[in-house]
Amino acid sequence: MLEELKQKVYEANMLLPKYGLVTFTWGNVSAVDREQKLFVIKPSGVPYEDLKPEDMVVVAFDGQKVEGSMNPSSDTATHAWLYKNWDSIGGVVHTHSSFATSWAQAGRDIPCYGTTHADYYYGEVPCLRVLTGEEIDAGYEKNTGKLIVDEFARLNKDPEAVSAVLCKNHGPFAWGKDAEDAVHSAVVLEEVAKMAFRTELINPKVAPAPQVLQDKHYYRKHGANAYYGQ
Amino acid sequence: MLEELKQKVYEANMLLPKYGLVTFTWGNVSAVDREQKLFVIKPSGVPYEDLKPEDMVVVAFDGQKVEGSMNPSSDTATHAWLYKNWDSIGGVVHTHSSFATSWAQAGRDIPCYGTTHADYYYGEVPCLRVLTGEEIDAGYEKNTGKLIVDEFARLNKDPEAVSAVLCKNHGPFAWGKDAEDAVHSAVVLEEVAKMAFRTELINPKVAPAPQVLQDKHYYRKHGANAYYGQ
Amino acid sequence: MLEELKQKVYEANMLLPKYGLVTFTWGNVSAVDREQKLFVIKPSGVPYEDLKPEDMVVVAFDGQKVEGSMNPSSDTATHAWLYKNWDSIGGVVHTHSSFATSWAQAGRDIPCYGTTHADYYYGEVPCLRVLTGEEIDAGYEKNTGKLIVDEFARLNKDPEAVSAVLCKNHGPFAWGKDAEDAVHSAVVLEEVAKMAFRTELINPKVAPAPQVLQDKHYYRKHGANAYYGQ
Amino acid sequence: MLEELKQKVYEANMLLPKYGLVTFTWGNVSAVDREQKLFVIKPSGVPYEDLKPEDMVVVAFDGQKVEGSMNPSSDTATHAWLYKNWDSIGGVVHTHSSFATSWAQAGRDIPCYGTTHADYYYGEVPCLRVLTGEEIDAGYEKNTGKLIVDEFARLNKDPEAVSAVLCKNHGPFAWGKDAEDAVHSAVVLEEVAKMAFRTELINPKVAPAPQVLQDKHYYRKHGANAYYGQ
Repeated sequence: MLEELKQKVYEANMLLPKYGLVTFTWGNVSAVDREQKLFVIKPSGVPYEDLKPEDMVVVAFDGQKVEGSMNPSSDTATHAWLYKNWDSIGGVVHTHSSFATSWAQAGRDIPCYGTTHADYYYGEVPCLRVLTGEEIDAGYEKNTGKLIVDEFARLNKDPEAVSAVLCKNHGPFAWGKDAEDAVHSAVVLEEVAKMAFRTELINPKVAPAPQVLQDKHYYRKHGANAYYGQ
Repeated sequence: MLEELKQKVYEANMLLPKYGLVTFTWGNVSAVDREQKLFVIKPSGVPYEDLKPEDMVVVAFDGQKVEGSMNPSSDTATHAWLYKNWDSIGGVVHTHSSFATSWAQAGRDIPCYGTTHADYYYGEVPCLRVLTGEEIDAGYEKNTGKLIVDEFARLNKDPEAVSAVLCKNHGPFAWGKDAEDAVHSAVVLEEVAKMAFRTELINPKVAPAPQVLQDKHYYRKHGANAYYGQ
Repeated sequence: MLEELKQKVYEANMLLPKYGLVTFTWGNVSAVDREQKLFVIKPSGVPYEDLKPEDMVVVAFDGQKVEGSMNPSSDTATHAWLYKNWDSIGGVVHTHSSFATSWAQAGRDIPCYGTTHADYYYGEVPCLRVLTGEEIDAGYEKNTGKLIVDEFARLNKDPEAVSAVLCKNHGPFAWGKDAEDAVHSAVVLEEVAKMAFRTELINPKVAPAPQVLQDKHYYRKHGANAYYGQ
Repeated sequence: MLEELKQKVYEANMLLPKYGLVTFTWGNVSAVDREQKLFVIKPSGVPYEDLKPEDMVVVAFDGQKVEGSMNPSSDTATHAWLYKNWDSIGGVVHTHSSFATSWAQAGRDIPCYGTTHADYYYGEVPCLRVLTGEEIDAGYEKNTGKLIVDEFARLNKDPEAVSAVLCKNHGPFAWGKDAEDAVHSAVVLEEVAKMAFRTELINPKVAPAPQVLQDKHYYRKHGANAYYGQ
């Protein structure tokens, strides 16, 4: 099933060690087939050096495995909830990348301090609350996805305009139009998190970039009037 | 003697430069043969690029060399004490890895700020006191091992649930079910130390992760109800 | 057209990933042909691994493309303004290199804290203001170049003596006598920014290096009495 | 002349990029022939990738070139003064390595915060004052060497027990029994500087390691009762 998608998801997973976003097995990438309402995800706990395309697991939107000899990622139910509720996304990635996770552990949104951030994310990357004991007991991974979707709605954030989030005391999720694009967002997030960390140490009283500059850079790369690239 | 174990200890030692945990000869890994009550350890002061499996030294639990043409690591008596007193461990590693050593130099426990930590260590990684002048004179390395074992008992910490420790003004020791697993813990410790360092700089008033989240992640990977991995 | 210059600009662009100054496509290098009043620049949004010498785009000083199948860098109008107004420069580079961009995001000049800085830049590397909404709307990239040239005049800084600048909430531009020399300045800037960051954390009350030491090192490498090198 | 020594000095110079201690040409290594009262040093401003053993320059203790087609390092007079005044040293190295230079720019001694430091240096690594305008004008590089030798005498520091120094607003010099040993000290200094930087950020009120622990580690590796290594 979905052999082409498995290959792409495999390749996107292998980008995580290439870009230095994972230690050991601390990350997973998935991508969706919208027609079949199925997604393909990394198996749980398998080292990247041992990973093969055929190890990828096929899962339905309710989180149940449809095909595959291995257990899917323990975070599968989070991915499933995002695919089910956000029609616009095609790939999801979770990592414990060092700087983004440090912001998540610190419990803070990443402010937009410059054009590197504004080129990709419209406004701050939010850090969500920790799940309650009840939410954890009733389905930790599914409720992580539910919290992301609910908070984006409450904060009036469009997942296409802000393709990443921090889960407090945990780490980042990122997404995109496909698996590779989701990894792209995870790399950008780590760079943005690193520079925001340093920015605040250089100037503890720093303010976010002026909105007019954020708008200029965001819309230079996105939307009808974009003129970046080919 | 113990040729297979020597090979494994050699390979685990070679993981230290691979994972960036050592400069020059600043680290050593050992593993135990529980039946024979012997362990195998890196020779002292030998550069990793020159190391060979047959250089590994066989040592008894009293710290005396049993076989080998070279002197064992100067930290041998610490390893010996841990094997003698903790039946559950199979491998021990000592490094001066940069972030973990910085916490040790700062004299602080590493708090559990997130799930990366909670996935591996149950609660904070403790930083122990410096040995007294008397303890140093009466057998520095043996008394380092004794302090670790005694403090874990006093703090009611299970070495299987917290497989690493910081020795104040010195650096980390880590352990595991075998040599490779001990190195795994040393790598995790360094990552956790790095992220805790950054977390506190991002938010100086940060608190440890809620206990309910720590429990969720620890027991997702350990014990009877674990469901991570294959 | 300008095949030799295209090759040099291509090679200088490929130095950016070599020196770790770019993530994805976040950078561009150009170089000028003063006789023909044309410059050659990287195409917009093309990944470095796919870049070829023949992809380089030829542009006139008014920012209009003269030759090339691809769109030039979105920052082309900034490069154009610098070439048009500063006769002494032969190459220009823009990156989002991590430490220099962090200073730009923090909105601070980089003080001269030591001889590494003084060897290359005479005095602080200035951080310029953000463009106004009017300036952004009336030609963001051209007005970025105009601001750099105007501010260097106002601050009485010679672009040969200070071959780099920070644009607030954006990132660095650097220049030199040719494309490779411009990249050289961008590498130095990143190192200097990194060390200034750490210097202030080690000593929050640090002052710039004494002027007499700055002068000694700057004039050891520049001007009639230089005696560094061959 | 001194072909064997040239080869060793060449190899020691090539260790600087290997260990990440230099950017471009920002470093130089030399070694002495005590019988002939000559030393061999890197030529000035030559990139490491172009360096050849035969490029090394032979210099007398008064700083005058004795053999070689190229100009010796601009720091040659500093090396000369150290060889002339300290009989115990065989090699000298100067770099702008990032963390050590940051401490030099901050104008602070590096305190001994742990055993990594104590294993190599007895007590803090001192940061010396900036030369006066008169000293700079009367021979900057020679007077840099003179300051190092004079200050070590005044501070009652043995160059064998503390094989490195920081020159304020400039950077580190390190030395050893030969060229490779000098580079070894420069690597240790950078690691120690990095960990001291992080240690103070983790615990701003941290104190140096207890003297008894410093003594234990220093004398475990040095002197009549050393038992580290083979």
